[in-house]
Amino acid sequence: MKLGRLNHIGVATPSIEDSLALYCDLMGAELAHTPFDLPAQGVKVCFVDTPNTQIELIEPLGEDSPIHGFLAKNPAGGQHHVCYEVPDIHEAKAWFEEKGARVLGEPRIGAHGTLIFFVHPRDMGGVLTEIMESPRDDLH
Amino acid sequence: MKLGRLNHIGVATPSIEDSLALYCDLMGAELAHTPFDLPAQGVKVCFVDTPNTQIELIEPLGEDSPIHGFLAKNPAGGQHHVCYEVPDIHEAKAWFEEKGARVLGEPRIGAHGTLIFFVHPRDMGGVLTEIMESPRDDLH
Repeated sequence: MKLGRLNHIGVATPSIEDSLALYCDLMGAELAHTPFDLPAQGVKVCFVDTPNTQIELIEPLGEDSPIHGFLAKNPAGGQHHVCYEVPDIHEAKAWFEEKGARVLGEPRIGAHGTLIFFVHPRDMGGVLTEIMESPRDDLH
Repeated sequence: MKLGRLNHIGVATPSIEDSLALYCDLMGAELAHTPFDLPAQGVKVCFVDTPNTQIELIEPLGEDSPIHGFLAKNPAGGQHHVCYEVPDIHEAKAWFEEKGARVLGEPRIGAHGTLIFFVHPRDMGGVLTEIMESPRDDLH
């Protein structure tokens, strides 16, 4: 496997609305996307574009959202995960498993509509890492 | 101000050597840089290239390193900061201060040899944010 492009950094927030205001007003981002629900992951999502990658703002969706635990420890929000692209998600899963890294669940549809999985932070130097099949209509 | 490119994500680690092995063997990164000391920041640094940005591995350097506290809470390491480029560091500092964000100290030379400052995570949705003047010989 070859290290792919950083598709996005995942930033957890108690309020996507407040975070969008912050990224637009303070950081000078242009609002180019609208928030949407991703019920299978238990998150509401909105992407913010930078010139070379994206910020994925994630807010808890529902009582069982996996983000609640993170926000309990980090009430203001914070860096949640990073996401790298791979050409083939199943090959990537086999690669990580062969190397002994813990893949969290089966590949499932992620926020960009392609298959993703997460690798346990304990096997990634403390960094929760999302592996994502590159979007075929990727404009980057 | 306009949101600039993500120069790097900063990842704290108790051992750059171990992290380089992880990023090369497990993530498929190519070793293109060598670690170096940045005594003014109290860190040892090594960059890892991705196709569109970099990972900045940072290890504590010296007793007073600001990374010790982070590693006490996150012994395996983890996501420490993100860094965005700006064309002019002094204009950026004035911008953040006008907006009421807490700029941590005066601009100083960072790991890429250009001026940088940090913005307090409390003013950035919990994300410790480095602002960095773009390298003039930037090869990206």
